[in-house]
Amino acid sequence: MGSMTGSVVVAGCEWLEYDYGPALVPQDRPASFTMWRYRDLLPLPDGPVRYPLPIGGTPLLPVPALRQEAGTPRLWVKDETRNPTTSNKDRATALVIEDGLRRGIDTITTASTGNAAVSTAFGAAAAGLRAVIFVSLECRPEKIAMMTQAGAWVFQVPAGYAAATDLSRDAARAFGWLDRNTGANPVTLEAKKTVAFEVWEQLGRVVPDVVVAPVGDGPTLVALDKGFDELVRCGLATRRPRLVGVQAEHCQPLVRAWQGRTAAPADLDPAATAADGIAVLRAAIGDAVLDAVRRDGGAMVAVSETALDDAVGVLARRAGLSAEPAGASALAGLGSAVGQGLVDRSETVVLLVTGRGKAAAGPPDQRRVAVVDGLDEVAQLLAGEETR
Amino acid sequence: MGSMTGSVVVAGCEWLEYDYGPALVPQDRPASFTMWRYRDLLPLPDGPVRYPLPIGGTPLLPVPALRQEAGTPRLWVKDETRNPTTSNKDRATALVIEDGLRRGIDTITTASTGNAAVSTAFGAAAAGLRAVIFVSLECRPEKIAMMTQAGAWVFQVPAGYAAATDLSRDAARAFGWLDRNTGANPVTLEAKKTVAFEVWEQLGRVVPDVVVAPVGDGPTLVALDKGFDELVRCGLATRRPRLVGVQAEHCQPLVRAWQGRTAAPADLDPAATAADGIAVLRAAIGDAVLDAVRRDGGAMVAVSETALDDAVGVLARRAGLSAEPAGASALAGLGSAVGQGLVDRSETVVLLVTGRGKAAAGPPDQRRVAVVDGLDEVAQLLAGEETR
Ligand SMILES: Cc1ncc(COP(=O)(O)O)c(C=O)c1O
Ligand SMILES: Cc1ncc(COP(=O)(O)O)c(C=O)c1O
Repeated sequence: MGSMTGSVVVAGCEWLEYDYGPALVPQDRPASFTMWRYRDLLPLPDGPVRYPLPIGGTPLLPVPALRQEAGTPRLWVKDETRNPTTSNKDRATALVIEDGLRRGIDTITTASTGNAAVSTAFGAAAAGLRAVIFVSLECRPEKIAMMTQAGAWVFQVPAGYAAATDLSRDAARAFGWLDRNTGANPVTLEAKKTVAFEVWEQLGRVVPDVVVAPVGDGPTLVALDKGFDELVRCGLATRRPRLVGVQAEHCQPLVRAWQGRTAAPADLDPAATAADGIAVLRAAIGDAVLDAVRRDGGAMVAVSETALDDAVGVLARRAGLSAEPAGASALAGLGSAVGQGLVDRSETVVLLVTGRGKAAAGPPDQRRVAVVDGLDEVAQLLAGEETR
Repeated sequence: MGSMTGSVVVAGCEWLEYDYGPALVPQDRPASFTMWRYRDLLPLPDGPVRYPLPIGGTPLLPVPALRQEAGTPRLWVKDETRNPTTSNKDRATALVIEDGLRRGIDTITTASTGNAAVSTAFGAAAAGLRAVIFVSLECRPEKIAMMTQAGAWVFQVPAGYAAATDLSRDAARAFGWLDRNTGANPVTLEAKKTVAFEVWEQLGRVVPDVVVAPVGDGPTLVALDKGFDELVRCGLATRRPRLVGVQAEHCQPLVRAWQGRTAAPADLDPAATAADGIAVLRAAIGDAVLDAVRRDGGAMVAVSETALDDAVGVLARRAGLSAEPAGASALAGLGSAVGQGLVDRSETVVLLVTGRGKAAAGPPDQRRVAVVDGLDEVAQLLAGEETR
């Protein structure tokens, strides 16, 4: 019990007591684990890091209850929802802004409708930079509200998302702003590759057999590939993991390309999936995704809306993790990959979960809710639990 | 630039390259900083920690832009929103469940309408325990939905919140469950006091002058007091900080008690404030709050709804932090305390921010949103920025 000796009551409140002395608190400085640990493999000049939010160093969770439910004894979850704005986009935001702080640039721009824009808006606010976001007219008002809450400028471009991207990149060139556009700035890949370094270190300097990751524009997966590739080139690992990229059935251009099949219209309907973060019709670096998956011996898999919905629920109930549908897609993708014989349940598998659930999807599960007056009813309802 | 040497194009995507070798990745194990660091001051028997989610070790942010805006050069934010369910409740959940895992108890119960229940539901899910939550009929369906999403049982008690608490405690006694009720289980204070240890260590083993914290039931503030008190008793510090407790003007029973004034009905209307997390009419450990604030030379302050709303905005725009109104109340409280001459802007002040914003409150700020067709309009709008 540590050095606990008993308890006293202070103003009506029980205080546990210990055998107090200086040795009860460790002497060493509390350590911090962030992505800057890998600065020798980042395009970052010497000198102190100025970006004021800690980024990366996210946990690799052992998920005991999920392992049991899924029958996958060596399953891990890389929990990227623990970043400041709950996604791996924060890594790219941080490295791009760090570069800007050193060069005295005061504005960052990106086109995005989703997590990358929110990450950019909040990261810029923390660092005292101005964020200028370009979106299409379809961008949802709640998302724009989050961006403006953090003080970002939001420009809506009637000609659509591709035009928004062009305008953002033009503005960066014309005004000397930081360009954080996915696929345009190689620094974003550099930042996201640190996920691979962390996973390898967290497994005890061991490369997993398989990493399952969501694929929208592609940087998440391609950066994993580059990170593991660099570990091999450093002589620290002898192989890369197989990467399994996941898309939604309703928007699976890269799955179809990987299969060598033509995508039907039903495969290309971004609005039809709840996984908006990965519903990208023309991936910014799709060729690089296919190349990585082929070289690694990996695969691309598609998942249904039901599988996505189930994955959100299973992550919550069995791992205590709240993820948005795109964030939970890696778990759904694992199911699909196992079903197709691409992954064996006994392998060491890491699921990349990025993007926290914004709120519980839908109403309460009424099988779990009851009005009660006393303990008897509680006991009775719980006793019936197994049979429900 | 680390050891960067140049770049190559891989499948259409630019890869930066380095002078690869094993020395580019640090040799030591990546460190982890969690609340278990303080286990000698926790009621925790020897042996490995079984709770599967990392808890605590949250950042103490230097908030450069906020310091400038507020004119407070030594202001820090203890960012408790970086815990798994975004509040300091996760510390208490973890320690209570850790105890249960060691004793083989498979169910945890609490009464709560807010963050404590969500924390309990997700924490129990991660650890493979059953969570049984008791709420009043007023509890909002979205919150119940989050609890059931994590697989918790939710019992609604028609006789109200106090009866729900009684029933939860009765159930714990009758069925041998873990009792996580605030104020009932001293272990919850033990867990939350680790915030004080962390702040002290993160300031370089220095006690701040002032800590500003939200006050609902009281454990957050009382645990800070106990933590700093224990540092003194360990001989590691010579004084405690002044603690400033914050309540909403519309629900400020403890502010009135501290002032020795009778609370008017307008001071006791929990439904009238957006800061639901601190809108508690009868604080579970209110006497202990008043005792702590008196002993420390601190104070209790009340904040208006406008001040709360402003604080949410300033934290987003100047610290890149998304907080719910109760979570941002410490910043609003600092303004009030400075205004009353209770705190000087030059002091070392730590704001405890706990409870992440669930979504942007309200619509986009239209002064920051515009439809544009080209760069000229962008340049023009930004040029007018100062004059808006
Ligand atoms: C929640 C979520 N998951 C996954 C992705 C996919 O990442 P990428 O675009 O790097 O392929 C995104 C990207 O927007 C996302 O928002
Ligand atoms: C967001 C938020 N802030 C502050 C508090 C206040 O904490 P305490 O009840 O420990 O006084 C709570 C408690 O529910 C909360 O949910």
